[in-house]
Amino acid sequence: MSQDQIIDCRSEPQAIPFRIGVVLFPGFQALDAFGPMDCLNVLSRNHAVTLALLSSTLEPVTTKSPVSPHALGQAVVPTHTFETAPSLDLLLVPGGLGSRGSSPAIEETISYIRNVYPTLKYLITVCTGSGLAARAGVLDGKRATTNKRAWAEITALSGLVEWVPHARWVVDGNIWSSSGVSAGIDVTLAWIEEVYGCQVADTIANGIEYTRHRDSSHDPFAELHGL
Amino acid sequence: MSQDQIIDCRSEPQAIPFRIGVVLFPGFQALDAFGPMDCLNVLSRNHAVTLALLSSTLEPVTTKSPVSPHALGQAVVPTHTFETAPSLDLLLVPGGLGSRGSSPAIEETISYIRNVYPTLKYLITVCTGSGLAARAGVLDGKRATTNKRAWAEITALSGLVEWVPHARWVVDGNIWSSSGVSAGIDVTLAWIEEVYGCQVADTIANGIEYTRHRDSSHDPFAELHGL
Repeated sequence: MSQDQIIDCRSEPQAIPFRIGVVLFPGFQALDAFGPMDCLNVLSRNHAVTLALLSSTLEPVTTKSPVSPHALGQAVVPTHTFETAPSLDLLLVPGGLGSRGSSPAIEETISYIRNVYPTLKYLITVCTGSGLAARAGVLDGKRATTNKRAWAEITALSGLVEWVPHARWVVDGNIWSSSGVSAGIDVTLAWIEEVYGCQVADTIANGIEYTRHRDSSHDPFAELHGL
Repeated sequence: MSQDQIIDCRSEPQAIPFRIGVVLFPGFQALDAFGPMDCLNVLSRNHAVTLALLSSTLEPVTTKSPVSPHALGQAVVPTHTFETAPSLDLLLVPGGLGSRGSSPAIEETISYIRNVYPTLKYLITVCTGSGLAARAGVLDGKRATTNKRAWAEITALSGLVEWVPHARWVVDGNIWSSSGVSAGIDVTLAWIEEVYGCQVADTIANGIEYTRHRDSSHDPFAELHGL
């Protein structure tokens, strides 16, 4: 995004909408998606933003873990399939137990990430969502981070990624990757700060009464999970 | 909940399920509901818990703010109507711009809270959700807190509540009320600690890489919003 566009975003709520998409797949982690989306929902009260919720089909997508038969889940309604997805400026990829292993839904998600990435201005991954980006090949040669408890499994997915163990989030080029789950709120607020300015990001954080992690390299959970 | 039941919860994943409900209404704040629900989703991987998502109808319920016509929203599928709601042990009430003012959906939500409260073991309110509980009369004579930016509007809803301005969350009897939005994660983890034990709560917090607010009276956002 050019400096002109950044200034437009800050001063012109009615500017050309910034187009955001979020991929949903069975077993996505609820907070991976809804932490960032809550920030974007608040942003959208004063800034022109569109949001597409993308999945294989238009059927509601559950957060229920496919590997925990008794686990709870909530069902969220997609707005588009991968085939009918609109053009996007930013794609957000959550993680979750459903991102592990393989299934038709996951393979379609990975294909979509691979195909759409060259058209994006930004890609944000949350938690094990970076594993999907790695499998799509879009992290090849880049620095990235991921969930710290799932570190060994996710980093083994690609030897072509420079995995950063101690990081709340990592920025390399136009890819912003966060650590696990709630770190998605911090990477989203950091991205909002980059694009819309510090005051907008802080107003959102204070509105949702969230104590931001402001230092991307501060990561108490890396040590806690043995990294 | 008796001490016996608490011990059961900690040691017997296959014990009688703990029955949780969450009310949904148009314009609920996404993170108010999904912060706590993500904690409960993780809890449910190892503990017997059921979850009912309750609304006026079974139509998907949007987080889209009814007072911000251009704002984003996500649609979540209820599992029960208020009329078909199962018996519950815990009811969780989120807030959001949709909780303000009056509408048939909000009046039905308030009636449900009023009617179901005497049957509950616990009530948790998040953010302006305490305004709904106050309007239902269940906070009469009790201490409670709410969103700090919306403080004046919400506290004016009831003079019978002892509103606590400096609190991340407040416990009075079986009602746990939190401050705004992300404070819902802290009150839920505190409640999980009370019912399932500290280790369970910390394991969930560390798994979702969330830096807990452990002191219920520590509230940087009260001062920030002029309280």
